Amino acid sequence: MEGGDHLAHERNKAEFDVNEMKIVWAGSRHAFEVSNRMSRLVASDPVFDKSNRAVMTRKELFKNTLRKSAHAWKLINELRLSDEESVIFKYFMDQPGFLDLHWRMFVPAIKGQGTEEQKQKWLPLANKMQIIGCYAQTELGHGSNVQGLETTATFDPQTDQFILHSPTQTSSKWWPGGLGKVSTHAVVYARLITNGKDHGVHGFIVQLRNLDDHSPLPGITIGDIGVKFGNGAYNSMDNGFLMFDKFCIPRDQMLMRLSKVTREGKYVPSDVPRQLMYGTMVSVRQTIVSNASVAMARAVCIATRYSAVRRQFGSQNGGIETQVIDYKTQQNRLFPLLASAYAFRFVGEWLKWLYTDVTQRLEASDFATLPEAHACTAGLKSMTTSATSDGIEECRKLCGGHGYLWCSGLPELFAVYVPACTYEGDNVVLQLQVARFLMKTVAQLSSGKAPAGTTAYMGRAKHLLHCHSSIRKAEDWLNPAMVLEAFEARALRMAVSCANNLSKFENQEQGFSELLADLVEAAIAHCQLIVVSKFIAKLEGDIKGKGVKNQLKNLCYIYALHLIHKHLGDFLSTNTITPEQASLANNQLRSLYSQLRPNAVALVDAFDYTDHYLGSVLGRYDGNVYPKLFEEALKDPLNDSVVPDGYHEYIRPFIKQHLRSARL
Amino acid sequence: MEGGDHLAHERNKAEFDVNEMKIVWAGSRHAFEVSNRMSRLVASDPVFDKSNRAVMTRKELFKNTLRKSAHAWKLINELRLSDEESVIFKYFMDQPGFLDLHWRMFVPAIKGQGTEEQKQKWLPLANKMQIIGCYAQTELGHGSNVQGLETTATFDPQTDQFILHSPTQTSSKWWPGGLGKVSTHAVVYARLITNGKDHGVHGFIVQLRNLDDHSPLPGITIGDIGVKFGNGAYNSMDNGFLMFDKFCIPRDQMLMRLSKVTREGKYVPSDVPRQLMYGTMVSVRQTIVSNASVAMARAVCIATRYSAVRRQFGSQNGGIETQVIDYKTQQNRLFPLLASAYAFRFVGEWLKWLYTDVTQRLEASDFATLPEAHACTAGLKSMTTSATSDGIEECRKLCGGHGYLWCSGLPELFAVYVPACTYEGDNVVLQLQVARFLMKTVAQLSSGKAPAGTTAYMGRAKHLLHCHSSIRKAEDWLNPAMVLEAFEARALRMAVSCANNLSKFENQEQGFSELLADLVEAAIAHCQLIVVSKFIAKLEGDIKGKGVKNQLKNLCYIYALHLIHKHLGDFLSTNTITPEQASLANNQLRSLYSQLRPNAVALVDAFDYTDHYLGSVLGRYDGNVYPKLFEEALKDPLNDSVVPDGYHEYIRPFIKQHLRSARL
Repeated sequence: MEGGDHLAHERNKAEFDVNEMKIVWAGSRHAFEVSNRMSRLVASDPVFDKSNRAVMTRKELFKNTLRKSAHAWKLINELRLSDEESVIFKYFMDQPGFLDLHWRMFVPAIKGQGTEEQKQKWLPLANKMQIIGCYAQTELGHGSNVQGLETTATFDPQTDQFILHSPTQTSSKWWPGGLGKVSTHAVVYARLITNGKDHGVHGFIVQLRNLDDHSPLPGITIGDIGVKFGNGAYNSMDNGFLMFDKFCIPRDQMLMRLSKVTREGKYVPSDVPRQLMYGTMVSVRQTIVSNASVAMARAVCIATRYSAVRRQFGSQNGGIETQVIDYKTQQNRLFPLLASAYAFRFVGEWLKWLYTDVTQRLEASDFATLPEAHACTAGLKSMTTSATSDGIEECRKLCGGHGYLWCSGLPELFAVYVPACTYEGDNVVLQLQVARFLMKTVAQLSSGKAPAGTTAYMGRAKHLLHCHSSIRKAEDWLNPAMVLEAFEARALRMAVSCANNLSKFENQEQGFSELLADLVEAAIAHCQLIVVSKFIAKLEGDIKGKGVKNQLKNLCYIYALHLIHKHLGDFLSTNTITPEQASLANNQLRSLYSQLRPNAVALVDAFDYTDHYLGSVLGRYDGNVYPKLFEEALKDPLNDSVVPDGYHEYIRPFIKQHLRSARL
Repeated sequence: MEGGDHLAHERNKAEFDVNEMKIVWAGSRHAFEVSNRMSRLVASDPVFDKSNRAVMTRKELFKNTLRKSAHAWKLINELRLSDEESVIFKYFMDQPGFLDLHWRMFVPAIKGQGTEEQKQKWLPLANKMQIIGCYAQTELGHGSNVQGLETTATFDPQTDQFILHSPTQTSSKWWPGGLGKVSTHAVVYARLITNGKDHGVHGFIVQLRNLDDHSPLPGITIGDIGVKFGNGAYNSMDNGFLMFDKFCIPRDQMLMRLSKVTREGKYVPSDVPRQLMYGTMVSVRQTIVSNASVAMARAVCIATRYSAVRRQFGSQNGGIETQVIDYKTQQNRLFPLLASAYAFRFVGEWLKWLYTDVTQRLEASDFATLPEAHACTAGLKSMTTSATSDGIEECRKLCGGHGYLWCSGLPELFAVYVPACTYEGDNVVLQLQVARFLMKTVAQLSSGKAPAGTTAYMGRAKHLLHCHSSIRKAEDWLNPAMVLEAFEARALRMAVSCANNLSKFENQEQGFSELLADLVEAAIAHCQLIVVSKFIAKLEGDIKGKGVKNQLKNLCYIYALHLIHKHLGDFLSTNTITPEQASLANNQLRSLYSQLRPNAVALVDAFDYTDHYLGSVLGRYDGNVYPKLFEEALKDPLNDSVVPDGYHEYIRPFIKQHLRSARL
């Protein structure tokens, strides 16, 4: 390693087995091995170089994505990568592109909503990528409110076709990734109209482009929606718009698993339960939560390593300065984010289990747990993505001025991550769904129906509404039962308080809309409880490796106690804890920071990220930051010449005082 | 106006005189007129078009900035703009460039630190811009800790010169704006060494480039540090690096107002008080606070207008949907930011007064109020810039998916604004300075010395430490004395609690570093009190115009009460208010939101921003958002051709299944 390992002294301090922690982080030895192998496969291939993204034009960046996508698909086939491997391989490519939409949205939509016949026809084409598909739902005027979509699909019994039409400008499809320039097909969502009756939003398979020359088919207007946040980020993706001018498709291209339209134009719902669709949603959101942990971990890895490299102040008489990671202000901001990365990882792991559980129940036509699972995944998607967006930006600030450089990797990570707060359900809208579910659960408490799953604690309302925390000393805050009780009591009391306030309104809906802000806070309290409880549950399991469990314990309580501090108003106003107990929590937190400190660098090494994936000069594994910052700077096109382009026209006239006569 | 005013119905709802509010916002009728005139002068000149920034390469963007700068300077001279006018003119150009550094840093440094002789020599050149200067302080390894700078300026008595040298890679100057490609000169900060003795950091005027061909002088290595956050933002600026290889300058280019080096190499401090330097700092930070209000107002203007345009959910039977600004969740996030914009505006105005006051006192050699003024400006700089950065991103999220489009203006605004949290003092480091000052003030309370200025309330410690809030009903939260008392009691109790905890440590410095996180929170509480108290003071003044005062009152209490909710843990844990009183504050807040709602659009109109300055399709004055989003999209170079560049190499091989043999 060039220049050696500048962080070796940090790594030597670690009090646990990093290799075992890598396996805990990955979820299993197998998962670790696949992830390790795939990330290195991507990193070693020059086609997947990411370092020049910031200086590419939009067109170059887009073409570069096309190239990477084609190369990836070629490799996946040549190396005969398994489905599991190829998903991870694509993930480590770390450049948004049409492959994502084709595989994660288009193919699953056909699988989930298509009939057997439709799947037989379309999936082989899609699986070989002879057609490239995207998912065209969102419209210019309609994102969150899917039921408000305006695009129509009117059945014409004379021709046995659906006529797709965009009646207004706001009905234009807007945002779908892969739509603008690449996709040949799309699953399009539109209002189904037969015999003048509107049956609501349904999905249709629509060919968009000629397969010979890629030109849009007549009746279709299509294009890219323009530049988005960041230099690179989603600008590699052709998020697109799409308008239909009475565009016809055969009747059998409506996705007909849940309902169909007959030759005569009769609308016939099938006997497949609608609830099956929710299974997919649980799966998609589980992935988002897992990805939140990855993004948070990535930012934290960069900020932690650079905080160990960077020194500032505190030198005595010209001696070496203090590593910024040793400042309590830095620890107080950074370590809770490190703990959050681990917390989100484990709740994501648990969601994987939940998805399996839900799927099995759905197959047995048991829909009882579905509302709870649905609320829980919605809330966790919202909470983890919001925390991760904020966390990435906080990590950027924790790197000081240099975090503002593109080559720190953090601006790019922020720009590419923040849409997670909006897609697959706006985070506030999702918390309101959770709140609705909580209000329903509270209302049913008196009915004797025991709440299940993540709301089981509400069944102990009598105790939780009146209990007093028995915390007496700082160490009590490491007692899992006491911590859990505090989070449960706070969440329940906030939900019950909302329910009480709601009951004062004659009109429940009006009350709900008046109290929206409080309801969101109650929902967040519930979600935080879930994350804390799943982390504690993780600790109760079997964890191998010297010191590993101890580190996870520190992280778990840092996560919980920093939340208590951050949301202290909740805990105090519900009388869940006293100000004195809160102060003990703070003391315990400070002590946990000191215990974590020597392990910080090793704890981010456990994510096993390659320098390629991190894409950050500040987060380099070897800590050799400053010479590499210079190398990066010198690559900027502005440094191609010493005297800049424009000197003669716009700088020299100042100096020579010719500006008055200059032509600008 | 094309398509008419889509927000006319909102404007008609306003219950106050918008034109009078414009004057209140601007500070005076004169200030309004200048700002109105300058912003329209910039907006009407095609050279200052900003709409294509996102699709320019770095080189094009940089050259475009050079052009704008030269054009601006030419206009300023042709139109004989006053100093006041030209500052505002440059502000509305809204594109960071070398003019900023030349005028705001280079010239003031010479004015403040140069001797009369030096000013006579250099200022005429700088004022005509025959030389272009920048401010080279920050180094690769040293930002916050100015005393740790490594660049040396060693006096050589033989040649009567200083030898400037960069002894290490980390000593390279890194970040100064205008340095990389444009500046001919710089004020360089370096450790002064005479006769082997290090006298600490001093400023030197250094020529960097040949005035004939712009090439760097021998012994100087110089360049641009590369791409930064965002597509446009600070990428228009040549933030640079600079290394000296034993580069010599004449002795008289050390800035010698505060201390000089004689021909013999003797270091002689002058009798000019060092405190004079702090006056400049107060001035610079006052500007930053004012700019925070402008940036916050800009983001809030965009989000408010688009929230009134955008509709989502809530339609009954296919009717028109609800404007998103009518949702309490939206109001609860947006209105406190609107209130913050006004709050920061007025505290900025007060800081202007403070600066005048400090300057007058300094001239009379009265340094008594300086520490308080210094702490106060440091804290307000930190608090307002942090809140504004977060607020801009929150406004982006409040615009839903479309906020992620570059043409929403918000990604660009965020990227260009966030450095304010780091430059002129890292925000956390600054709050620690405030905390130190507060700890000193608390320590002196028993000495009988009455604390002055913004800490005057601490003189009432006896009362404030033990008082109980007399809030009994929601409306009591509109009582200025009661609100002020709550903020004062909270701030004082937090400071005193920190001081008590500090006193438990034997070593004060160790205690300070252990309690850093708590100290920062106490400092923030103090700063929030200042902002609230200055807003209340503003209301007590003479305010003209129908309904204007009433609107400001609503905004003031929204600002105060949202802070109570956000920092509820502080208020409850210090027993400043009870949970019941907090709940009354929430009720009052909701009622204030309803009162503000019909005035929201008019309140952002009062900022008097042109569409050019806003640079946002979503924030357009006329609300004609959707057609304009299409127009913007069609301008993207990706839409130059229907079939994208790269189709034949990278897309067609998928569809035709030729990928295996394709050369990628």
